[in-house]
Amino acid sequence: MSAAEPSIDSAHVLELLTRLREQNPLVQNITNYVAMTLSANVLLAVGASPAMVHAVEEVEAFVGISSSLVINIGTLSPTWVEGMRLAATRARALGKPWVLDPVGCGATPYRTSVAVELAALKPAIIRGNGSEILALAGSVGGGKGVDSTAASDEALAAAVALSKRTGAVVAVTGAIDYATDGERVVAIASGDPLMTRSTGLGCALSATTAAFAAVAPPLAAASAALAVYGAAGKAAAHSCKGPGHLPAELCDALVAMNAELLARHAKISTRAFP
Amino acid sequence: MSAAEPSIDSAHVLELLTRLREQNPLVQNITNYVAMTLSANVLLAVGASPAMVHAVEEVEAFVGISSSLVINIGTLSPTWVEGMRLAATRARALGKPWVLDPVGCGATPYRTSVAVELAALKPAIIRGNGSEILALAGSVGGGKGVDSTAASDEALAAAVALSKRTGAVVAVTGAIDYATDGERVVAIASGDPLMTRSTGLGCALSATTAAFAAVAPPLAAASAALAVYGAAGKAAAHSCKGPGHLPAELCDALVAMNAELLARHAKISTRAFP
Amino acid sequence: MSAAEPSIDSAHVLELLTRLREQNPLVQNITNYVAMTLSANVLLAVGASPAMVHAVEEVEAFVGISSSLVINIGTLSPTWVEGMRLAATRARALGKPWVLDPVGCGATPYRTSVAVELAALKPAIIRGNGSEILALAGSVGGGKGVDSTAASDEALAAAVALSKRTGAVVAVTGAIDYATDGERVVAIASGDPLMTRSTGLGCALSATTAAFAAVAPPLAAASAALAVYGAAGKAAAHSCKGPGHLPAELCDALVAMNAELLARHAKISTRAFP
Repeated sequence: MSAAEPSIDSAHVLELLTRLREQNPLVQNITNYVAMTLSANVLLAVGASPAMVHAVEEVEAFVGISSSLVINIGTLSPTWVEGMRLAATRARALGKPWVLDPVGCGATPYRTSVAVELAALKPAIIRGNGSEILALAGSVGGGKGVDSTAASDEALAAAVALSKRTGAVVAVTGAIDYATDGERVVAIASGDPLMTRSTGLGCALSATTAAFAAVAPPLAAASAALAVYGAAGKAAAHSCKGPGHLPAELCDALVAMNAELLARHAKISTRAFP
Repeated sequence: MSAAEPSIDSAHVLELLTRLREQNPLVQNITNYVAMTLSANVLLAVGASPAMVHAVEEVEAFVGISSSLVINIGTLSPTWVEGMRLAATRARALGKPWVLDPVGCGATPYRTSVAVELAALKPAIIRGNGSEILALAGSVGGGKGVDSTAASDEALAAAVALSKRTGAVVAVTGAIDYATDGERVVAIASGDPLMTRSTGLGCALSATTAAFAAVAPPLAAASAALAVYGAAGKAAAHSCKGPGHLPAELCDALVAMNAELLARHAKISTRAFP
Repeated sequence: MSAAEPSIDSAHVLELLTRLREQNPLVQNITNYVAMTLSANVLLAVGASPAMVHAVEEVEAFVGISSSLVINIGTLSPTWVEGMRLAATRARALGKPWVLDPVGCGATPYRTSVAVELAALKPAIIRGNGSEILALAGSVGGGKGVDSTAASDEALAAAVALSKRTGAVVAVTGAIDYATDGERVVAIASGDPLMTRSTGLGCALSATTAAFAAVAPPLAAASAALAVYGAAGKAAAHSCKGPGHLPAELCDALVAMNAELLARHAKISTRAFP
């Protein structure tokens, strides 16, 4: 860490959240059909302005007016992948950060090859679950569809390796969430097991990560997204008798997020790896 | 206004709502991925029967059995645009009203050109926010993605001009909503700022507008949709601590809408322009 | 019924629900844009693991790791239909059960022809409303979009005929739900009229049916899905003042489902046909 960089702790996360709410960045989403609505609502709740734009005919022009971009391969098909390529390339050319969510990487050869190709297009941040990060890092994933079978701890070494290889900050989620730039590791304890019973929450976290990437450097952005989102998820879970209302409660908790809620629901620590 | 036309006030809006609930029109939607589910639920709540049908192979046949149509370019791509063209043309040929929602018009050249092309296919009603209506009318929009940066008041003159040029009733939404046929302006004060924090609410309003267009002439239909939807949104916002549950509460408020709720939550006034 | 098969009653349905929760089958969905999110959440709530995968490039590989498959033609287009064909064919080749939901069959010639083609690819179960089953069986449907105009009783004879012709178990939903293998008829009284006011509930039922098909033979699976889902829907409707929160309450009720709730909210009876 350079002397000029602030340490990544609760106070800094709150500063970034305040900055995000003030700047209201326009976040472009090329994401899957399942998580689009939730991603848009989560972005609005956290203080960003969402847009879902994927067509080859306009995706590059839209990058020009966006603050950041998230690319999520959940329901990929060749036409969409072409838009992803163009958008990622343009984002990089314009110096705008973009986030890759390699959903289900490892589940099929096509999915893995697209994830690998996109990872080479210089995302600022890659965000996935343990199985996805292991598969993308070339380790043995044993992925089961889009749900994770690998604990995030097991994937941490793969995340560090993936970060070193791609230059991206890698965020891996699980019981404990980690963000790493290949040297430092930020660990965040937050969230709630109920979050695994509601679809698209990981995808909407990736969108949130792109929102923070519009206002902060990658490691701080990824860590802030994990902490704010995880704390909101934990607070939301406490308001729910089951998973049904969790997405709605999550949005309300993101709007309500403040120092007290963050301190109560997220523990952030930083260390060198290994 | 001809002597035969009823004035557009709360009593008339309620008559139209009753007619809509009795006739249960089949409303065809060619709309974006983000707002599809909400649009369907809002249509069910207001008393219509929704169908989402977009493929070139069947879109014209479906217009034949629909009562009205809404075309929304939120997540447009060439294949979908071809279905939009065919459906709009067939609707016009069959004398069935259709509503255009030019989402994000002005944000990219592709999006603007598609909106302009569709606006020439004789929609009965065009419904957008201030930025979109300004951009579509050829004025300077300065649009920021799909959220509006222009107050609806500023867009009123553009709406009147767009109405005169296209022959469509134009509805422009904002802090105050307006509907105009190029000569008369119906102003509706309702809604709640919380509605801007939940995605797809404008799109679902356009779907609601198509439902009313199946049972009333365009200016009355647009006005009734704005009043009923805005009143329901305001009532719903009062039941919410944040935006998370707003879509669900909105649906419940649409089902519950009656004279008392409409009078409390929507103020309707009509005047000549300018 | 062979002597070895258990009778299909509440006790057996509960056994299958327990088995489903223990085995957590991976259910592949090729479904419509409107119902994708709800289908995923319902699958998670009932104890399955959902994946939405439709592209020609990976759909067959994904069948290889899935436990079962649901194909729903709600928002069909040629590219998607090609994926449906490949997935259904591969599922059959691998001996994995798949469920067909012929949404809106009868509404347009294209839709009907695709449904007929898919029905020939040996689904284990076909699940539709009265109009859809009548249309698919070659009877006169008179379908109105995707909502049913035929009572499920009227469609029972068509369901039996369709079952005999295709070899599939046919489930037809309405005020009373029926599942038939062409000889036996299981009738289930559950559900609530409020369920017709919320979009995608039929589609998510078909997904649930695929989840049960991963752990039980077709007639038992279809019956268990109808009973568990209908009971959850009825319990959920009792918690709602309108349709808005019904999807969320339905998910919570599926998670909470147990012997007492099932007995209270679903009546199951079996008879020979006719």
